Amino acid sequence: MSQDQTARVLAALDSARTATEASLIDWLRIPSVSAQPAHAADCRHAAEWLAGELVALGFEAGLRETPGHPVVIATHPGPSPDAPHILIYGHYDVQPPEPLALWDSPPFEPQVVPGPRGPRLVARGAVDDKGQVMTWLAALRAWNKVAGGPPVRVTVLVEGEEEIGSPNLEAVLAADKDILSADMVLISDTNMWDAATPSLTVSLRGLVYTQIDLRLGDRDLHSGLFGGSAANVLNLLTKILGELKDADGRVQIPGFYDGVQEPTAEQRAAWEALGFDEAAFLGAQGLSVPGGERGRSAPERLWARPTADINGIWGGYMGEGSKTVIACEGHAKLSCRLVPGQDPQKVIEGIREFVRSRLPADAQFELQVFASGPGISIPMDSPFVQAARAVLAEEFGRPAVMAGGGGSIPVVSSFKSILGLDSLLMGFGLDDDQVHSPNEKFELACLHAGARSHARLLGRLAQR
Amino acid sequence: MSQDQTARVLAALDSARTATEASLIDWLRIPSVSAQPAHAADCRHAAEWLAGELVALGFEAGLRETPGHPVVIATHPGPSPDAPHILIYGHYDVQPPEPLALWDSPPFEPQVVPGPRGPRLVARGAVDDKGQVMTWLAALRAWNKVAGGPPVRVTVLVEGEEEIGSPNLEAVLAADKDILSADMVLISDTNMWDAATPSLTVSLRGLVYTQIDLRLGDRDLHSGLFGGSAANVLNLLTKILGELKDADGRVQIPGFYDGVQEPTAEQRAAWEALGFDEAAFLGAQGLSVPGGERGRSAPERLWARPTADINGIWGGYMGEGSKTVIACEGHAKLSCRLVPGQDPQKVIEGIREFVRSRLPADAQFELQVFASGPGISIPMDSPFVQAARAVLAEEFGRPAVMAGGGGSIPVVSSFKSILGLDSLLMGFGLDDDQVHSPNEKFELACLHAGARSHARLLGRLAQR
Repeated sequence: MSQDQTARVLAALDSARTATEASLIDWLRIPSVSAQPAHAADCRHAAEWLAGELVALGFEAGLRETPGHPVVIATHPGPSPDAPHILIYGHYDVQPPEPLALWDSPPFEPQVVPGPRGPRLVARGAVDDKGQVMTWLAALRAWNKVAGGPPVRVTVLVEGEEEIGSPNLEAVLAADKDILSADMVLISDTNMWDAATPSLTVSLRGLVYTQIDLRLGDRDLHSGLFGGSAANVLNLLTKILGELKDADGRVQIPGFYDGVQEPTAEQRAAWEALGFDEAAFLGAQGLSVPGGERGRSAPERLWARPTADINGIWGGYMGEGSKTVIACEGHAKLSCRLVPGQDPQKVIEGIREFVRSRLPADAQFELQVFASGPGISIPMDSPFVQAARAVLAEEFGRPAVMAGGGGSIPVVSSFKSILGLDSLLMGFGLDDDQVHSPNEKFELACLHAGARSHARLLGRLAQR
Repeated sequence: MSQDQTARVLAALDSARTATEASLIDWLRIPSVSAQPAHAADCRHAAEWLAGELVALGFEAGLRETPGHPVVIATHPGPSPDAPHILIYGHYDVQPPEPLALWDSPPFEPQVVPGPRGPRLVARGAVDDKGQVMTWLAALRAWNKVAGGPPVRVTVLVEGEEEIGSPNLEAVLAADKDILSADMVLISDTNMWDAATPSLTVSLRGLVYTQIDLRLGDRDLHSGLFGGSAANVLNLLTKILGELKDADGRVQIPGFYDGVQEPTAEQRAAWEALGFDEAAFLGAQGLSVPGGERGRSAPERLWARPTADINGIWGGYMGEGSKTVIACEGHAKLSCRLVPGQDPQKVIEGIREFVRSRLPADAQFELQVFASGPGISIPMDSPFVQAARAVLAEEFGRPAVMAGGGGSIPVVSSFKSILGLDSLLMGFGLDDDQVHSPNEKFELACLHAGARSHARLLGRLAQR
């Protein structure tokens, strides 16, 4: 009976494809950029949109206020109080779209354009995360249409600050613990292995994000009158950052690798068996010479090794032509992806010491911290992970790759520490989706396969 | 008779102080920013203003067109065809005023404000170079009033592109060689030793100004999805620039020091005798730890050693908060002050090689060159220098310091190579005038002492 029901749900999904795409396009029009205060009202609007969609499916849904952007919380009692209970997490906020000049179409005017694998939807948030949220929202709609509701108890928690480090989320989880209880968390914000092969993400890197602000002297100076006597803050800043890694790519921040475990032989063998094609991975981005630590494989460098990347740098004269100035201020944004075992606070202190120990006595230095969260390992033997492996194999006709994630989803750590829940990371993005870049896209094939996978998963979890 | 005439010229100057200041203020209102195309008409207006002032003094004056901003050329026959002939050079263009927020008053609304040494005039161009031009223009006015004209033949050449590297000047000198003949060139665009002690500049550093443009990859990337595999152009740029100098401050550009001569024991002794107070020099700017090469004195590092300064750097995300991006472009402006003996073209090639040899195979690199000119030595035994030493001692009651200049005046080299003329560098700026910075100022005491010095010099040169 259940399998027949799942089949009818899948058929309902298939006949609603256009409506699913149209619904996502409507949501994508709302420029819910959490990092920019000018878009605060848009963020609220995007939250209200989702809450409205859930109310239409029989959920109790509302906006839970925070000091920042609101959180959408919605609950559905499912078929019975004994049914398994899943908590679905997502985020309605999106990355800033800048630089605008590099978009082929306006970031908040979604376009369906042809691509090598079929049509794709281009917009900021197309995959990260509104498109991926739509994969389970569409599945819930289909279950509602066929069965009157989901086959399990469902709580939805969709926040609006993921792209700015979720500053208010932990407080919400702690305060609303009672209404957020469940058996597991389901998150769709990661990637498939490739366009034909699904993936479950079994580890996530953490993130520490800082800004280095240096000042040398009271004012800008004439480089002829002062050059050779006055020290130059931009020479200093580049000297410091230039020492971030040694010739083998090893990060020189003190204590950086404390707690980082070497992979086991089995892990190395599993990565080897993936046949990861780094030349193609980089080649698609116009790159050929890998970064990262010498002597380690690409999966290891992407999933199991920490990084130190300069995300931005500025100071002095940046306009046309020449200005012979010795500036008095320089700035850089420096962030590190962390792996399980590293303590984010210690990494922050390490960054502070790395810079401080290289400063002359008259330099002024401030370190701002914008994000801080640890790396995470997810146990592979849970029944939820097993259920997901099964439905993905059914949908795609091949087993899911059990992969590490390079990016950070700090909330996974918060769900564990505050609610005691493990997360299931089943996502449908692709590596070339250009998340955080201009012309972000989501393959329509991935949208619909993702919705079908979620529909299957809800049915499978109900059978437990 | 001549000394009495000079005395009357000085008296005329003294009684015209307010008019001199008012005239300079009028000229300073014109935002003649040569680096910004939006101010092209203002540059022309500033040129026309000066030409008009010279016509009123009996000069034949006009605007000599170039592919860029026009050059003011004016001639006065003086008392006779046998009289000594001086060519006076200056520039009517000014540095960009940015950053505007740091000015206490608008850069093109000149203010007279009190200061520790008396009133000062605050505006962009107050000293560099309009204020210094006014020191000889006021002197010419006084000579005109008392004697009907200057006591020597005078050619004035005031260009509008000095701040952008004088790209069209050499062509003008070469083409107009015949009308630009003279016995020497007089330039007022350098500094006094201190507020009470005049100076003649006997060497100038040259300048090479470049922009490094690096590209790695086709697009910005997500630092979680790609960090550890994709190389980061900002990590690369800082690594390269961080190697610009060794631990002793020695510049690592290949061939950089070729042709640089060690100072003689006499030069070192002369510099030692100056009693240059580097702690005070830097302290006035909020600095205490000197830059430059270890083991060399401040005068040597400022006048006789080349430099490598990063004037600007930018790339990646520079806005508020965080964006976890691996950028695909990074840029830096790198300029070097040169000393006599260095070949600017070789230094440019050295910079190119320095960067190129540190690039991975997939990086794209362009070097733009905005300025290129050698360092210059000026012979101290010329009769013109001797005349200037004499008048400065008279005006200030103490000998002029024979100093090196830290800054570059490339036209001095052009005057020598094209017109065969040596330059006399007699300037009245001060080190704390904040040239090229916000709140640029000119002490009114320096303006008037400079005008009196020029008035004396014209009289002294006529006696030759």
